Amino acid sequence: MTWVYLDGVFVDAGQARVAAGDAGLLYGRGLFETFRARRGRVYLLERHLARLEAGAGTLGIELPAALGGLWDIVRELAERCGLDDARVRLTLTAGPSTLRLRSVQAGLRTSPEGGRPTLLLQARPATDYPERMYQQGASAIIVPVRRNETSPLSRVKSLNYLDNLLAREQARSAGADEALFLNTQGRLADGSASNVFLVKGGELLTPPVEDGALPGVTRGALLELAKGAGLGSREATLVSDDLLGADEAFLTNAVAGVLPLVSVDGVPVSSGAPGEATRRLRALYEAAAQG
Amino acid sequence: MTWVYLDGVFVDAGQARVAAGDAGLLYGRGLFETFRARRGRVYLLERHLARLEAGAGTLGIELPAALGGLWDIVRELAERCGLDDARVRLTLTAGPSTLRLRSVQAGLRTSPEGGRPTLLLQARPATDYPERMYQQGASAIIVPVRRNETSPLSRVKSLNYLDNLLAREQARSAGADEALFLNTQGRLADGSASNVFLVKGGELLTPPVEDGALPGVTRGALLELAKGAGLGSREATLVSDDLLGADEAFLTNAVAGVLPLVSVDGVPVSSGAPGEATRRLRALYEAAAQG
Repeated sequence: MTWVYLDGVFVDAGQARVAAGDAGLLYGRGLFETFRARRGRVYLLERHLARLEAGAGTLGIELPAALGGLWDIVRELAERCGLDDARVRLTLTAGPSTLRLRSVQAGLRTSPEGGRPTLLLQARPATDYPERMYQQGASAIIVPVRRNETSPLSRVKSLNYLDNLLAREQARSAGADEALFLNTQGRLADGSASNVFLVKGGELLTPPVEDGALPGVTRGALLELAKGAGLGSREATLVSDDLLGADEAFLTNAVAGVLPLVSVDGVPVSSGAPGEATRRLRALYEAAAQG
Repeated sequence: MTWVYLDGVFVDAGQARVAAGDAGLLYGRGLFETFRARRGRVYLLERHLARLEAGAGTLGIELPAALGGLWDIVRELAERCGLDDARVRLTLTAGPSTLRLRSVQAGLRTSPEGGRPTLLLQARPATDYPERMYQQGASAIIVPVRRNETSPLSRVKSLNYLDNLLAREQARSAGADEALFLNTQGRLADGSASNVFLVKGGELLTPPVEDGALPGVTRGALLELAKGAGLGSREATLVSDDLLGADEAFLTNAVAGVLPLVSVDGVPVSSGAPGEATRRLRALYEAAAQG
């Protein structure tokens, strides 16, 4: 049986229901985090929580007290689902709405009509990225839709996720693994479900949050781990030509870890095979994550 | 008691629940339409349906057969709720998801795992726009976040509605009634819950859909009604200075109808009072809508 955690209880996934008036459903007023639980352990869970908290501030959602026990919830959920290696999604919404716009700025962070945040956790096997993808490397296309870096939502993992979803589907139907977004100024931002990195002249580079990159938890970890792989690292404004002129490139997210990126729009990145620095960084990341 | 219509049945609003795995909740994969039902009658309901159908194509959602009986559903909902003048919101989502990305382009418009669209209708009194707002006129601010006209979502009334919601809240906390968006090129697009029009030299002008204007049903009606008010009408690329240099300006949506816009960022539009052409257009619109 597949279980989910919903507002304090574990229930059969097929039976889990939320209020039809939930602002998460009506307007996408909510957030999510996706991470990997291996033997009940989540790497950098506290950073996922910190990002969730920042997003909750932007969206005017109060953090439920249950998040204090998140470690235990994740462990029990994975155990109930019989998953040794789980992809876990946490969803937090603003809860039932009265269909009236509520003023966040006025300090009403919870609705006087009684909107209580909805907290949902779902788990499934972490099988999205088979080992052959790491050996062969992933492909990406650059999609025409731009990442809107002028919106606070570009820095928040919100339930307004359709641009990502449609871009990913566009990539898949073009035979590619991932979709990359440029921002409204034509600068590289991030992927539909990943951050993007390149290695050039012994340095690790990734687009800054100001250019529309989601502040990924794994992205942050890689910027710190670079030193251990003998690389400098920094945020840098990049364009698509920088990718194609790079020594190596890779994608990151909390489920995939470090995934080599070997072609963009059908053009190989460097040799078109996963690079050495990428391999070293993946090993360092996996050692830390599985530690 | 407040009723809602949910997937074929009328239920107590407080008891209405949707699957926690609904793609509308998890990703905002869904659409909505808001309209006004006066004595059970909805002006231009078929155009709302046409827009819904177009959006469903973009998002890969199959239209439920129940929409064929929408007139009756709306009438019964308003009656059950005891609303002679109702603001009705229709929500259509992609339904329960397996958390796996599904390929729309591959022609899988419904999930093979059994995702069935969710159809929800909610009603409340149409009291958002009191008569004094029409007499005094509304105020707007231009918000810093841009409308992303590069996204297909700018042409679809989707559940990814947070930019609109946050912009509206920003306007309200600044003491204004509405937020106006420029697009990524700095051109005028639309309002957070309205389209924007200006009258200049006997012509009615409104931003084209290509500039990020949502193809509003009331917007379309106004472009047609203009002739009856002795005005030409056309779509035109506009900037914020055009608004301030206009003879008159107004906002439209299906609940408000035609709402005079008399100030932008604290600067009066023309005399700072509702204009004559706006009054004539409102009268024409209301005659048609209430006819």
